Amino acid sequence: MDDFVFYNPTKILFGRGTENRVGAEARNYGTKVLIHYGGNFIQGSAFYARIRESLESAGLESIELAGVLPNPRLSLVREGIKLCREKGIGLVLAIGGGSTIDSAKAIGIGVPYDGDVWDFFTGTAVATGSLPVGVILTIPATGSEASNGSVITNEQGWLKRAAMADAIYPRFSILNPELAFSLPPYQVACGIADICSHLLERYFTNSVGVNLTDQLIEGALRAVIRAAPTVLSHPTDYDSWAEIMWSGTIAHNGLLNTGRVGDWASHDIEHELSGIYDVAHGAGMAVVFPAWMKYVKNHDILRFAQLASRVWGIEQSLRDPEHDALEGIARFEAFWSSLGLSTRLPGIGIEAERIDEMAAKCTRNGTSKIGNFVALSKGDVVAILRLAC
Amino acid sequence: MDDFVFYNPTKILFGRGTENRVGAEARNYGTKVLIHYGGNFIQGSAFYARIRESLESAGLESIELAGVLPNPRLSLVREGIKLCREKGIGLVLAIGGGSTIDSAKAIGIGVPYDGDVWDFFTGTAVATGSLPVGVILTIPATGSEASNGSVITNEQGWLKRAAMADAIYPRFSILNPELAFSLPPYQVACGIADICSHLLERYFTNSVGVNLTDQLIEGALRAVIRAAPTVLSHPTDYDSWAEIMWSGTIAHNGLLNTGRVGDWASHDIEHELSGIYDVAHGAGMAVVFPAWMKYVKNHDILRFAQLASRVWGIEQSLRDPEHDALEGIARFEAFWSSLGLSTRLPGIGIEAERIDEMAAKCTRNGTSKIGNFVALSKGDVVAILRLAC
Repeated sequence: MDDFVFYNPTKILFGRGTENRVGAEARNYGTKVLIHYGGNFIQGSAFYARIRESLESAGLESIELAGVLPNPRLSLVREGIKLCREKGIGLVLAIGGGSTIDSAKAIGIGVPYDGDVWDFFTGTAVATGSLPVGVILTIPATGSEASNGSVITNEQGWLKRAAMADAIYPRFSILNPELAFSLPPYQVACGIADICSHLLERYFTNSVGVNLTDQLIEGALRAVIRAAPTVLSHPTDYDSWAEIMWSGTIAHNGLLNTGRVGDWASHDIEHELSGIYDVAHGAGMAVVFPAWMKYVKNHDILRFAQLASRVWGIEQSLRDPEHDALEGIARFEAFWSSLGLSTRLPGIGIEAERIDEMAAKCTRNGTSKIGNFVALSKGDVVAILRLAC
Repeated sequence: MDDFVFYNPTKILFGRGTENRVGAEARNYGTKVLIHYGGNFIQGSAFYARIRESLESAGLESIELAGVLPNPRLSLVREGIKLCREKGIGLVLAIGGGSTIDSAKAIGIGVPYDGDVWDFFTGTAVATGSLPVGVILTIPATGSEASNGSVITNEQGWLKRAAMADAIYPRFSILNPELAFSLPPYQVACGIADICSHLLERYFTNSVGVNLTDQLIEGALRAVIRAAPTVLSHPTDYDSWAEIMWSGTIAHNGLLNTGRVGDWASHDIEHELSGIYDVAHGAGMAVVFPAWMKYVKNHDILRFAQLASRVWGIEQSLRDPEHDALEGIARFEAFWSSLGLSTRLPGIGIEAERIDEMAAKCTRNGTSKIGNFVALSKGDVVAILRLAC
């Protein structure tokens, strides 16, 4: 087991009607709240009215900043930072999914910082403080509600970059599975693929002595796989949604990679897909991950065979672990397909002709490698994307 | 899934040599440290010298308070509170296992409180603040290093009572599995039984829609069961110790009972055993839990059968789940026996004659019931203790 530091101070309020408690939480952080969200449809919703009422009952003044887009943009982050400073905001409240939360986190770390907030995303600076951020989660997927990261896209060059720091953890996150009942099925499926991809990135490691976290990751995968069909067929099934929503948080709150180094090359590759084509991140992951698994499986075929056995119940054939490994990968593909996702690039509107460009972008023109489980060159990334065609 | 709040801000520093980082952590909390521990053997150890050196290098002054006993006593807690106030202590540093940590936590919440610290343990008051507490763990067992609870024994009447509050979480806990290498085998076995008991208490629930946490608990149990024989046969096997130590923390840091209500009657019963006989808590749990399981199994035989199947690999016989349940219980008994623990009262020096007294004590003379999965009367507790003979 690798040495590690684990620290996650985000307070989770989970359950029915928890959005009504936002005022009581928010009033710990001053008197003015910046409400940050994406589409205007939120404004007209019943739960938004409840949130506003809770904040007002707590004597808090609210200012709105809407317009967060998927792959949230740096320009809106800068606008939010300016607004917080001008208005003396005490808390940024994100209402939405990963994009809105990441945008709110970026605003949070930008406010007390003298330089340009993009410094945190280029690695020029590390955030040591933040205006407090709170979350009301509406889309289970990214795990950003309890993570120490934020991913922002700079429109100048369409660079998608991540910042990570303890200061980025939200102070509190409110998770009411009921808020996910009305999500469109395709968005639900993308969220589930995203959750699986967070678990799988952590699973593929060269660290040894990691049976406990192997077991926990496998257990979370089994729980997601079991609940997934139900949230699509019965979108008001509270318990199944609760399994998905809490799995999404646990998949990415840092616990499941304690003592191990995950891979993350598939995320790097997908970032270039969604950077150029603006596809949903989860949809991209459902395409990239099977191809990545097929390409790297021989690096540690027994780990793939273990996954197949423990998650999919495939009987271990000790003399032919490659058979088990391939069977396990096929089951993941079949699972994502069953949710209505494509596992091939053309299925998400991406043609082979820009493969070379994407592979170049994620390896800095072929000068660097990506991935920890297996270090991939530009040529490897091209091969993986071809496998995904 | 039940509604819940999850919050755990304890920072974990896990790995080889992490005790050398205690100075850097401690200096965030003033200039004076109260070092709190049990036996004087700690003073002469090499790791204690390293801890002192780390604190001194950080420019910190240390004051010692030794003498913590198993089932830590209120009188020493009161002494510690007085000492912290007189000396202007900024951090209580516990070096040891659950007893020392619980004693340090009680001192911590006592310092800023105007009344008597025992108020927190009788339920007369709830702790809202604490002098910061840090931990260097030497015995994986109780999970107190990342829990919000403390159990203290009041010598006036030998009352063993627990306090729980967010203020009780340690600020940081340092976990170096190497510090456990030299533990006596019996103490190791007791610690492992304690960890299993924390997982099992959480497992037995009437809450529905808890597949995710079922899976996580089962996975942690499998990890503990797999690593346990190795730490006894090869006490310097770092990775196996790391699995046990980190499992012990995760078993009790609150995550595995999110969305569910555990039972805890076995703990209540064992508290009376160790209160009267001063047996090790884990040794008591290895006796009480099998008897409790046999007594209550028909309340939800399918949950017992599921445990047997998923943790012990017992093939499910759907037409005869009681067979599977009993087989699973037998496997737990065999496991604890294989570690050198007894699973019967006489094996830990307890005779049948005081069963009635213990049953009376934990049910307030038969006027209240214990346990959430099954509510047990005094008569039930008597029956369970008889099964344990």
